[in-house]
Formats: sequence, C-alpha cells, structure tokens
Amino acid sequence: MLLRIDHVGIACENLEEKIAFYRAAFGVTVVSQEVNEEQGVKEAMLHVADGEGGGSYIQLLEPTGPDTPVGKFLAKRGEGLHHVAYGVTDVTKAMAAMGGAGVRLVDEHPRHGAMGTSIAFLHPKDVGGVLTELVESPAPRPEQTKLKNG
Amino acid sequence: MLLRIDHVGIACENLEEKIAFYRAAFGVTVVSQEVNEEQGVKEAMLHVADGEGGGSYIQLLEPTGPDTPVGKFLAKRGEGLHHVAYGVTDVTKAMAAMGGAGVRLVDEHPRHGAMGTSIAFLHPKDVGGVLTELVESPAPRPEQTKLKNG
Repeated sequence: MLLRIDHVGIACENLEEKIAFYRAAFGVTVVSQEVNEEQGVKEAMLHVADGEGGGSYIQLLEPTGPDTPVGKFLAKRGEGLHHVAYGVTDVTKAMAAMGGAGVRLVDEHPRHGAMGTSIAFLHPKDVGGVLTELVESPAPRPEQTKLKNG
Repeated sequence: MLLRIDHVGIACENLEEKIAFYRAAFGVTVVSQEVNEEQGVKEAMLHVADGEGGGSYIQLLEPTGPDTPVGKFLAKRGEGLHHVAYGVTDVTKAMAAMGGAGVRLVDEHPRHGAMGTSIAFLHPKDVGGVLTELVESPAPRPEQTKLKNG
C-alpha cells in the first residue's frame, strides 16, 4: 500500500533561513515553494531522491500566523519534525482502507497538497502519536520526467 | 550528498503492539528486529520501498529502560516521531562535510545502526530541532538483492 516515504514535514520559524541552511549543509535543492492558505503554511519542498514510486522530499513549513496548526505546534513543541508522509497510488482508496483499519482521518475528503498532490492526514492519536499523511501524486513530476527522458 | 530518506524513527511504548498495528494498517513487513544495547533500544525496521540508493523504512523504537535517550524522549514528549535518517554513500565523509557546515555531531566516530549500517547523529540544535541521522549501508540489503536477481 505504501509506495515510498514521500516527505518528512519539518516545522520552522523562518522558512528562508531554513532553506538556506538545508541547501548549504545537505546540498538539497528547492523544487517547489508555495503558500497554502487552507493549511496556514508557507512551505518549500526540497528534493532528496527519486524512485520508481515518485520523489522524496524534505518539506519545510513556516506558519502564516500563530493561530494555525503549525503555529500552535511551534508554540507547544518548538521547531522540529512535524509529520511524515507516505506515497500511495490512490489516496481515496487508501483513506477507505485506513477507516477499515480503525484509523480516524483528519480529513473527510482529500485536500490539496504541495505540487498538485492530493493528500489526507490520519489522526495522530490512532498512529502512535505520529501525524501521518497520505500523498497521491497527480502525474510524473518534472524531475521524474527528466529521469525518464534522459 | 543525500541519497534517500532511509527511515523515520518512531518512539513507542510497546514495540510488538506497534509492529502489529503498522502491519495491519499499512501492510508493511518487518525486515529486521534487534536490540541495540549501545543505544538502549529494541527496534524493528519495517520495509516501505526500495530505490536505487537503497531501501526506505519505518523504524520503531522501544527503549530498554527509562534512563535511555528514547526512554527520556517518551517521558518528555510521549510517543511519536523521534528522528529522520538520510542515506549517504560514505558516512565518514558526510560527517566531515557536516562539521565543515558548522553542524555539530553527536558522535565523534560512526556507530553501528540497524542491519549492519554505519550511522552518525547530528546535533538537533544545529538542525532546527530535528534529530538527524546519516546512514551508510554496508552492502546491498536482502530485498535489494532479491529485486536485482528476480
């Protein structure tokens, strides 16, 4: 059911500073940067690797304000690991399977994630304290296309 | 420099219960289970995916006692995401590069990780609150060999 570790989500106070750090220390590159008003975050996807199932990324998250999920996370726990996301073929089917396994969903329907993905969050209380996200990629991503073509 | 997200490390109270949960909910399989006395953990590696750079895993960690790093983590923060590990080609070279980037190392020399890997932890205070591990795989892992031969 799980295709890959799609990304780890990391909460930070200052997105630009953290992007600069990850680029300098780990040599990773930014492949997407956007504001997700629905989730109250400014986010960047930093490319780690490609695989048959899709890419793997570090997702840096800066809240748009204190009264957002990531803003509250920072106030309570400080900067650090926020969630893990696994790639799935079909997020709607995966959500149904999760419900069947007794895992509550934060979302009733898939919502929009970074880079055109469809995503759903599982309730951390049902996954041993881990905020867990399921990610369905819409189509081959630019770096996959590049790999396939050349 | 980073080959892949090798694994996410998840701290839990009861390893066997959590293994059963992950198998049932996500369909992942246990590929390794061991006690690491040096790190004070009972751990299991659950296979998520293979890629050219190596496999990706969910690592479940149960402390061998309260006075261990993971035991203290559980007492302070409860069950949840503990660390993220990235695959590297050469952990010693990667450690040197980290030092050059001003990131302190928890370990002066590589230590033994799960499944015969050589690992090193970076100081979370220098990586935005994220306990970050570098992992060098010793040789093709069983499931990679299987893939290549089959």
